[in-house]
Amino acid sequence: MSDIEDRVRRLEGRVTELEDQVQLYQLMSSYGPLVDSGDAEATAALWVEDGIYDWGGGGTPEPDGKVKEGAAGAAFSQEAIADMVRGPYHQQIIHEGAGHVIGLPHIVLKGDEAVATSYSRLYRRDGENFRVWRVGANRWEFVRSPQGWRVRRRINCVLNGSQEPRDLLRSGIEG
Amino acid sequence: MSDIEDRVRRLEGRVTELEDQVQLYQLMSSYGPLVDSGDAEATAALWVEDGIYDWGGGGTPEPDGKVKEGAAGAAFSQEAIADMVRGPYHQQIIHEGAGHVIGLPHIVLKGDEAVATSYSRLYRRDGENFRVWRVGANRWEFVRSPQGWRVRRRINCVLNGSQEPRDLLRSGIEG
Amino acid sequence: MSDIEDRVRRLEGRVTELEDQVQLYQLMSSYGPLVDSGDAEATAALWVEDGIYDWGGGGTPEPDGKVKEGAAGAAFSQEAIADMVRGPYHQQIIHEGAGHVIGLPHIVLKGDEAVATSYSRLYRRDGENFRVWRVGANRWEFVRSPQGWRVRRRINCVLNGSQEPRDLLRSGIEG
Repeated sequence: MSDIEDRVRRLEGRVTELEDQVQLYQLMSSYGPLVDSGDAEATAALWVEDGIYDWGGGGTPEPDGKVKEGAAGAAFSQEAIADMVRGPYHQQIIHEGAGHVIGLPHIVLKGDEAVATSYSRLYRRDGENFRVWRVGANRWEFVRSPQGWRVRRRINCVLNGSQEPRDLLRSGIEG
Repeated sequence: MSDIEDRVRRLEGRVTELEDQVQLYQLMSSYGPLVDSGDAEATAALWVEDGIYDWGGGGTPEPDGKVKEGAAGAAFSQEAIADMVRGPYHQQIIHEGAGHVIGLPHIVLKGDEAVATSYSRLYRRDGENFRVWRVGANRWEFVRSPQGWRVRRRINCVLNGSQEPRDLLRSGIEG
Repeated sequence: MSDIEDRVRRLEGRVTELEDQVQLYQLMSSYGPLVDSGDAEATAALWVEDGIYDWGGGGTPEPDGKVKEGAAGAAFSQEAIADMVRGPYHQQIIHEGAGHVIGLPHIVLKGDEAVATSYSRLYRRDGENFRVWRVGANRWEFVRSPQGWRVRRRINCVLNGSQEPRDLLRSGIEG
């Protein structure tokens, strides 16, 4: 009997880990549809309340917690992330036609925390075709909350040939 | 004993749900290879017999069930989907060099039905490079059949800046 | 009791298969970050020691096991794969800004072997945007080793409109 109980306990642990992996896939694959449809609240709710989204050149957090708009900027709270989605810069991008696509991530789970590494691409409508405006190296740091997995910090760094995005990609892969 | 039986029953349910998620990943990741290799029958077999593939501007189903060819069109049966793959429009695209790429989907499972939201990209050979010809918002509606998951309806709507593709992306994400 | 044992045994088999699927996702999603960050050893360690990476036009293995550099070439060992990553051709690409993105694969598991089919894209920095330099049909052949899944052979064939990449895509999808 105890043998079966051990096997069931181990199975429960393995299934929980698989569910964590899939839940993080689900969270990351919802980012694009939420931000491209312009749902500011639902996008922001992917993060914890004081979560950080640094989309390049953001530097240190702003004491006032305001979003820094533009191609390089950052948001340092759910409220600031929602402001970014509502802001004129992002609104223009999605009203011209845009797709924020998150590729299959590599995920390292450690109990109630996780790190994912993925590529993001921002395609923008350009006449009869689309241009690839940004290809980013992404590091996502997650924490398990009572409501499920949430983003604590996402860093998105354009692959411009410099060391920073290359180091960011490497940082999330073990071995 | 009943405690262990309960735990095993719960595990069976959780594992079935994970398998559903993976089976839908498998179905969606087979679409591109099948349509780019030109296998009309195998592509059509991803759908149920009266399944719908609306790739933009399709409007209402045709009473005659014929495929509407071109950049905007639709097919309203397995047979019409196979006709689309065999048709001169699609054949030209794949003989010039093309990749129909389906991104990591967000999936909402509800028993024997499921909805997936994903981005599609159609890359076409263009000299020494490829151009991104289409970036689409996609909603896939699935039904579990005796032979496994099948597509009941897929809507692919170019991200042209209008409200329709943005609403389509939002429709498949809960919360 | 034996009924419960049977159910637990079946669950163990199903969970192992799901873990295999996820481990292969993890391996494939680590390729891009490793090769774009320039980690030659870690990239090569994804393959078995005599593993093959054929990135187009490679033809038959070289008796001397040396990498054939350039847009079309091949490497026929871990050592040669590491040499490719360290070589001037690849180093120039990543220092100009590049993303090697592997899409969601379709995977066919057969015990200790597996075949995956996926699209690769190589995005290269081009002024304020990126160009899509390569879109490849990919076939990955894996083997389970004592240290986990490893690549025995990867074939990456540009979707140039010819029959070869179309056949390659079709070869890895059952049905």
